[in-house]
Amino acid sequence: MKALECEPVGIVEREEGLEHKEGKEEIFSYDDFLRSKEAKISIFEKYCEALEGIRKGTLIWVIWYAHLVKDRPLKVHPFKDPKMPELGVFATRSPARPCPIGLSLCYVVSVDGCELKVKGLDAVDGTPVIDLKLYSRGLDDPREVLALARG
Amino acid sequence: MKALECEPVGIVEREEGLEHKEGKEEIFSYDDFLRSKEAKISIFEKYCEALEGIRKGTLIWVIWYAHLVKDRPLKVHPFKDPKMPELGVFATRSPARPCPIGLSLCYVVSVDGCELKVKGLDAVDGTPVIDLKLYSRGLDDPREVLALARG
Repeated sequence: MKALECEPVGIVEREEGLEHKEGKEEIFSYDDFLRSKEAKISIFEKYCEALEGIRKGTLIWVIWYAHLVKDRPLKVHPFKDPKMPELGVFATRSPARPCPIGLSLCYVVSVDGCELKVKGLDAVDGTPVIDLKLYSRGLDDPREVLALARG
Repeated sequence: MKALECEPVGIVEREEGLEHKEGKEEIFSYDDFLRSKEAKISIFEKYCEALEGIRKGTLIWVIWYAHLVKDRPLKVHPFKDPKMPELGVFATRSPARPCPIGLSLCYVVSVDGCELKVKGLDAVDGTPVIDLKLYSRGLDDPREVLALARG
């Protein structure tokens, strides 16, 4: 099957760079650090109109492309912890995966023209954003899909 | 910015084809119909090992590529209802969007070798799957991101 193509719709711009990763040994510390900090997403002008309806307080999925990922392992240690037995990467949230797509549920802090400020994003500065989607309780809440599975 | 490439990791195989779409005028009827039916995802053999750890009862995100989408509008009528005012496509879940990525929370009914059976998938037969990810309450529950936003 041939590769699928997707043009980025925007880019992550934030002040915390990769340097924070160095020297961090605590499990998850880096991702949590990024998630807790406000990040800017600049949507390219040609896609800006697609933001209409997103405003402060909206919950959105930010779908991004982990452009810095070089390895694409099939198995990883969960939480990057070498003491944990390896698991298939589809059963984890590691960004190093066959198709390195990141999924972050974000709170919109502000919208100003083509620029969003969000909290909850664990993508680093310079990451291409390929999609934004409204959070939907009917589609994204486990209780809904569990009810569907039982039905 | 140049287009990003992603090789599909599997394909949706299901009996309900596109013919169910014809003649359906009820809002959302088609997507809900698909979500309620069990669907098979065949993971390509080279990626099969990445499934380890996914089993019956696991909740996963299925990320797929809406290959049948031709239009990529910036604004759409929510719920495909022409009576509703148009909204930016990023503020909706329409599959017709600049980068036509679909996101479905699914319940795993069974895993047999490289084949998963799931409920909750609203992708049609033949849809390329580009990623599977474990559902994580810490990352994917709105309460968590709202607490982070307040923090």
